[in-house]
Amino acid sequence: MKDSYMGVDIGGTNLKIALFDYDFRYVDFKTYPSNNKVNPEDVVLLIKERVKSLSENYNIRSLVCGLPGLIDYKRGYIHSLTNINGWDSLYFKKMLRSSIKVPVFIDNDVNLAAFAEHQLGSGKGSNNMLMISLGTGVGGGLILNGEIYRGRNNAVSEVGHIQLNPRGPKCSCGNRGCLESYVGNRRLLTHLKRGLKNSKSILKKIAISDLKLEDVAKAAALGDKFSVDFWDYVASKLTQALTGVINILNLEKIIVGGGVSNAGESLLSPLKYHIKEQAMDIQGKSVKIVKARFKDRSGVVGAGLLGKYNLKRRRAR
Amino acid sequence: MKDSYMGVDIGGTNLKIALFDYDFRYVDFKTYPSNNKVNPEDVVLLIKERVKSLSENYNIRSLVCGLPGLIDYKRGYIHSLTNINGWDSLYFKKMLRSSIKVPVFIDNDVNLAAFAEHQLGSGKGSNNMLMISLGTGVGGGLILNGEIYRGRNNAVSEVGHIQLNPRGPKCSCGNRGCLESYVGNRRLLTHLKRGLKNSKSILKKIAISDLKLEDVAKAAALGDKFSVDFWDYVASKLTQALTGVINILNLEKIIVGGGVSNAGESLLSPLKYHIKEQAMDIQGKSVKIVKARFKDRSGVVGAGLLGKYNLKRRRAR
Repeated sequence: MKDSYMGVDIGGTNLKIALFDYDFRYVDFKTYPSNNKVNPEDVVLLIKERVKSLSENYNIRSLVCGLPGLIDYKRGYIHSLTNINGWDSLYFKKMLRSSIKVPVFIDNDVNLAAFAEHQLGSGKGSNNMLMISLGTGVGGGLILNGEIYRGRNNAVSEVGHIQLNPRGPKCSCGNRGCLESYVGNRRLLTHLKRGLKNSKSILKKIAISDLKLEDVAKAAALGDKFSVDFWDYVASKLTQALTGVINILNLEKIIVGGGVSNAGESLLSPLKYHIKEQAMDIQGKSVKIVKARFKDRSGVVGAGLLGKYNLKRRRAR
Repeated sequence: MKDSYMGVDIGGTNLKIALFDYDFRYVDFKTYPSNNKVNPEDVVLLIKERVKSLSENYNIRSLVCGLPGLIDYKRGYIHSLTNINGWDSLYFKKMLRSSIKVPVFIDNDVNLAAFAEHQLGSGKGSNNMLMISLGTGVGGGLILNGEIYRGRNNAVSEVGHIQLNPRGPKCSCGNRGCLESYVGNRRLLTHLKRGLKNSKSILKKIAISDLKLEDVAKAAALGDKFSVDFWDYVASKLTQALTGVINILNLEKIIVGGGVSNAGESLLSPLKYHIKEQAMDIQGKSVKIVKARFKDRSGVVGAGLLGKYNLKRRRAR
C-alpha cells in the first residue's frame, strides 16, 4: 500500500478532507457542509470514518487538522475558534488520537496556508515570509528561517491586529483602529457603499445590495476612478501595517491570499508601490509582494504537507 | 594558556575592547576615545595591537565586533553606520581577518546587546524576545527560537521605524510618523520643553538648557503630574508600536534598554499597564516588560558571548 498524508480543514462553512500521495498528488478529496454550531464529536466521527475507509487502499502516515482560531500546536489545544462555537479550551488532538491510530497534529489554518505557499506555492524558496489572508478577518502566518513560527504559546502572526490609529474604529479584539477594523471584508463594503453615494462611479449601475468587492476590482481594471481610489485606500492601510513588519523581519516575500485578494492587480499594484516607497531601503528592495497560489484549498494542502514534513524531520534526527 | 573571547564595541563616542574567560569574567577591559570620523584602518590597527598584547597570556579563541548600523553578518559587510562616516559599503570582516589570526565576526550592536541579555541578562531563559534600545535613535534586536534573528539580509529589528501615523513628523528614514520620530531622545526633549511652558511642574526650577530626561524621571517618581503625564505619553507611543510586534511574534519578553530607559519605573510602569490593556489577550498575558541588565557594556558582553556561542555550535556539528 502506498504511503499517503491526510489533510483536514475545518471551517464554519464547510469541512474538507484530502489525501495526498508521496508526490503530493490528490488521491482523494471530499467536502462536507459545516456550520457555526458543528460539534467536535461529530467531526471526530467523520474523520475516523474517512480514515477507516481510505486505509483499505492507502497507508495513511499522518493526519493534520487545520482550524480557524487560536491553536496551541505543541499541546494540541484549541484556545477558541473564530465563527464556530463550542470548541473553546479543548484538547482536540487528544480527542482525535483516542479514536484514530495515525500520528495527529492540529494547527491554525492560516499557518497551514502559509506552509502550503512556502512548500509548493508562491513562497517556494523563501526562508522568511508572511502570508496575509484578507477576508472577514485579517489573518497571518509567518515562516521564519524556513519553519512555521510559533512564538511562546502559538498565539502568533496576528497582522490584523496591528494598530493603525489609537482613535480608530472599535476592533473585534477589544482595541481600537487595528488593521482588521479598516480592511476586514464587511468594513470594506461599508466604506465602499458610503463613498459610492456621492460618486460618479460606473459601480452605480449595480444594485447596492448586490455589490461585491470583485465588481470594484473589475471597475478599477477598467479605469473607474472611484474604484482605483478605493483599492489605493485599501493598499495604503495594508502598507501602514506591513511596512512595520517588513522593517522588523526583513522578509523575502509577502503572500496575499483570502477572498479580498481576488481583486488581483487592482490591489497588488498600489500595494507594491506604497510598500517600496515607505519601507526602509534594504528591506523594501528585498521583499516581493505576490498573490497566493492556493485558494480555498490552501488549508488542506498545508495540512497534508505539514504531516509529511514532520515525519521527515523526525526521521532526520 | 587560558581560552578567552574578545568583544569589541565600536561607537561614535568611544571604542571598547574586552576580553572574557570561559566563565565570562572580565580578564581585560579598555575604553578608547572615538569620534564620528574614526577610520577603519586605525581601528583595525588598534584591535590588532590589543590581540597581540593579550595573546602573550591568553589563547584568544574568537573576536566579535559590534557596530552601530546596518551590518550583514553573513558576509561580514557594513552597509552603513549611524553617526560614523566613511564606513559605507565596507567588507570590514575581511579587513580584520587579513591582519588578525583569530575567527572574526561582525554584527549590529543592538543584536549583540539583545544576545547579552538573552544569555546572561534580563532575558535569560526566554526563547523569543525583543530588546528595544531607546536613545537618540530607537533600535531593536530580536531573539527568535533562541537565536539572533537575521531575516533575508540582516536588515532587521527596526522597531524604531514602525509607523504610528502616516501624517506624523518626518523621520530620519524618509517616512513619516515612525516610532523614532516621536520617542527619539532629541524629539522627547523638544516635546518636553514645549509642554513645560504652560505647566506648573517642579521641573521649572531647573534651567531649561540643563534639563535632562533623568530629571523628569525623578520628578515623576515624586508625583509631579506634568512628569507623570510625560512618561505616560512616551509609554503610549511605545505601546502602539509594540502591541503590533507582540500580537505577531507572541514574545516572552521585551527588554527595554538605552539611555531613555534610565527613567526606570516612571516609564516601565505605564508601559506595562498600556501593553496589558491593548495587546491581544494571550499575547499580552505572556509577555513580560523588563529593564535591561547591561548598560553601556551590553555591546562588548554580547560580542564576547556570540564568539563563544559560535565556536560551541561549530563543535556540535
